[in-house]
Amino acid sequence: MVHGGDVYTNGLLEGRELIDYSSNINPLGVPKSFIDNIGEALDALTRYPDIQYRNVLKGLGEYIGCPQEYFVLGNGAAEIIDLVIACHKSLLIVVPSFVEYEIDAKKWNCSIEYSYLKENINDDMLLKNRYAQLSYDYDDILNKLKNVQGIVLGNPNNPNGNIIDKPEFQKILEYCERNDKTIIIDEAFIEFTGGKQHSFESLVKDYKCLFIIRALTKFFAMPGIRFGYGISSNTYLIKLVKGKQNPWNINSFAEVAARYVLKDELYIRKSKEWIRDERASFLKALNNITFIDKVFLTYGNYVLCKLKGINSDECYKLCFAQGFVIRKADNFRGLDKQYIRLAIKDKDRNKKLIAVFKKLRIENE
Amino acid sequence: MVHGGDVYTNGLLEGRELIDYSSNINPLGVPKSFIDNIGEALDALTRYPDIQYRNVLKGLGEYIGCPQEYFVLGNGAAEIIDLVIACHKSLLIVVPSFVEYEIDAKKWNCSIEYSYLKENINDDMLLKNRYAQLSYDYDDILNKLKNVQGIVLGNPNNPNGNIIDKPEFQKILEYCERNDKTIIIDEAFIEFTGGKQHSFESLVKDYKCLFIIRALTKFFAMPGIRFGYGISSNTYLIKLVKGKQNPWNINSFAEVAARYVLKDELYIRKSKEWIRDERASFLKALNNITFIDKVFLTYGNYVLCKLKGINSDECYKLCFAQGFVIRKADNFRGLDKQYIRLAIKDKDRNKKLIAVFKKLRIENE
Repeated sequence: MVHGGDVYTNGLLEGRELIDYSSNINPLGVPKSFIDNIGEALDALTRYPDIQYRNVLKGLGEYIGCPQEYFVLGNGAAEIIDLVIACHKSLLIVVPSFVEYEIDAKKWNCSIEYSYLKENINDDMLLKNRYAQLSYDYDDILNKLKNVQGIVLGNPNNPNGNIIDKPEFQKILEYCERNDKTIIIDEAFIEFTGGKQHSFESLVKDYKCLFIIRALTKFFAMPGIRFGYGISSNTYLIKLVKGKQNPWNINSFAEVAARYVLKDELYIRKSKEWIRDERASFLKALNNITFIDKVFLTYGNYVLCKLKGINSDECYKLCFAQGFVIRKADNFRGLDKQYIRLAIKDKDRNKKLIAVFKKLRIENE
Repeated sequence: MVHGGDVYTNGLLEGRELIDYSSNINPLGVPKSFIDNIGEALDALTRYPDIQYRNVLKGLGEYIGCPQEYFVLGNGAAEIIDLVIACHKSLLIVVPSFVEYEIDAKKWNCSIEYSYLKENINDDMLLKNRYAQLSYDYDDILNKLKNVQGIVLGNPNNPNGNIIDKPEFQKILEYCERNDKTIIIDEAFIEFTGGKQHSFESLVKDYKCLFIIRALTKFFAMPGIRFGYGISSNTYLIKLVKGKQNPWNINSFAEVAARYVLKDELYIRKSKEWIRDERASFLKALNNITFIDKVFLTYGNYVLCKLKGINSDECYKLCFAQGFVIRKADNFRGLDKQYIRLAIKDKDRNKKLIAVFKKLRIENE
């Protein structure tokens, strides 16, 4: 399994209901503001979508607070990641991270350098727990940037959920701005971090080197809708990406969704409340599971765990037998069969998973 | 306007209802079989689509009568056209034709040769009318194929609606099969020709050189759904195209649509009855309009017309003032401001357009 979320290969195809902890989707589900307005998409279906997607751009401009010409729209974030990477001949990729960065770079014969996250311990005073933490190696990044045209990194990063420390990153930002290097920041999960303060969106205007990627996929629980976007004040790069796209790449349903869900303040508030509460209690519970050696501090809606006394294949099988699909993390560069990634879901299901984990411990002894 | 269907730039944006004769969509509208099952797409929305799209492939296999491994799915035919062209260093493009062939080829630095359609007269005995006709220049195609890796042509061709004459084409087919040249046939409008006999789908098994492109867009009246596909028994080429794609390129709604509408026999039968009847009477009526010099015989749901005493800009403006958007055809290579393209719609609207045309004649005299 290269990606999470592929519950089709087993389980569902045989008519079995599985609880999917491998894909990181907001458990609050599809926003009602989209369902209520789906009729607009049906009405629009027999027309070609507006090839310039004017209404969507207007909505995005208001949501992000940027001029409309800073945006490029994609058939999911996947398209944007692919095409912005295609604009570079060499890139530094921070790993472990979303595997598509590397797949895309190789596809476009873009030469790759890697910077590895480094591990340290974080005393989470709020939770009164000690968590492991993977952080960006800012010195290593700055050093390696000299040899490449740009960098790709996640904020928060997948699979572990660390975020960029803005003061630490400032030197890199200035260096890239001065030297025409692109900083591609994948913020597909940024809304789960809670506020706007962790995003780089407000810096886009002042730093042409920034290219931020966002999507409706995760936070608005619509991976099936296929809507992602890139943001940059580097209009040359935006034009370059657009030049690689096909006409009408956004479907009518995605167009309607984008126009409504970004303004759905109730959904956004409830989702942020849920993740704040549930992330804290789920991490704490995982920290007490005996076959989990380390729980990594996360700002996302997923948790990376390091196992002990059991490998990820065994853990996957045991969970699967109980109706849970977890994400083996060994295909992330730098990780191995000691690691799994878990989504954070609603309280009920998280409790069920924890109960299963506690049982696994007993069976394993 | 590079493409038809862009009613957003004027008209609709100002809240005005325009009748869009520039985009060639089945007037029967979205099939009920899709609307009735849209709930399945909503249910599926919070999951990632099946990354292998197994159910869709099964349905396509049954619809076309080909093994599932012959298919590659795209976010509209536009994606498939783009990516299969990207697999070639040189191509022969038959023109005038869909402008994206040329745009894509240039994007990928694919060198282009052109073969122009040639005009002749067709006595349509059935309609007791004389129509102009644009046909493939088969000798020219065979000759020019020697210098390129493949050919792109429409069947029926856009903007005029001619189809490939299979006996005449046989020599080209054999030549390409022997010499590893690709024949890319865009059959986006094939269902409007009436039966399966005009399609090359049944030859795909025996000729690896064939690569056929199809879509739900036109015949099933869903340009907003974004679903196209390629068919070829050249599994190497299929793999090459897939290698250029992003994961989850088909949205949940397109997935559900593909599974239901291809089996919607009532919709298919009614649509074929409509186009058979309406094409004949619309062509006949156009043939009697005094400012139309030539009506080109079409197997599609659109008609190319050559004007006299008025150019396409003037004609566009006059129609627009009456609430109709027509397609100026001067951005098709080989055509100029003497040409317009009209969609074939339902009887009522066609009658309205003809009435406007008759009035224009008077105003023009």
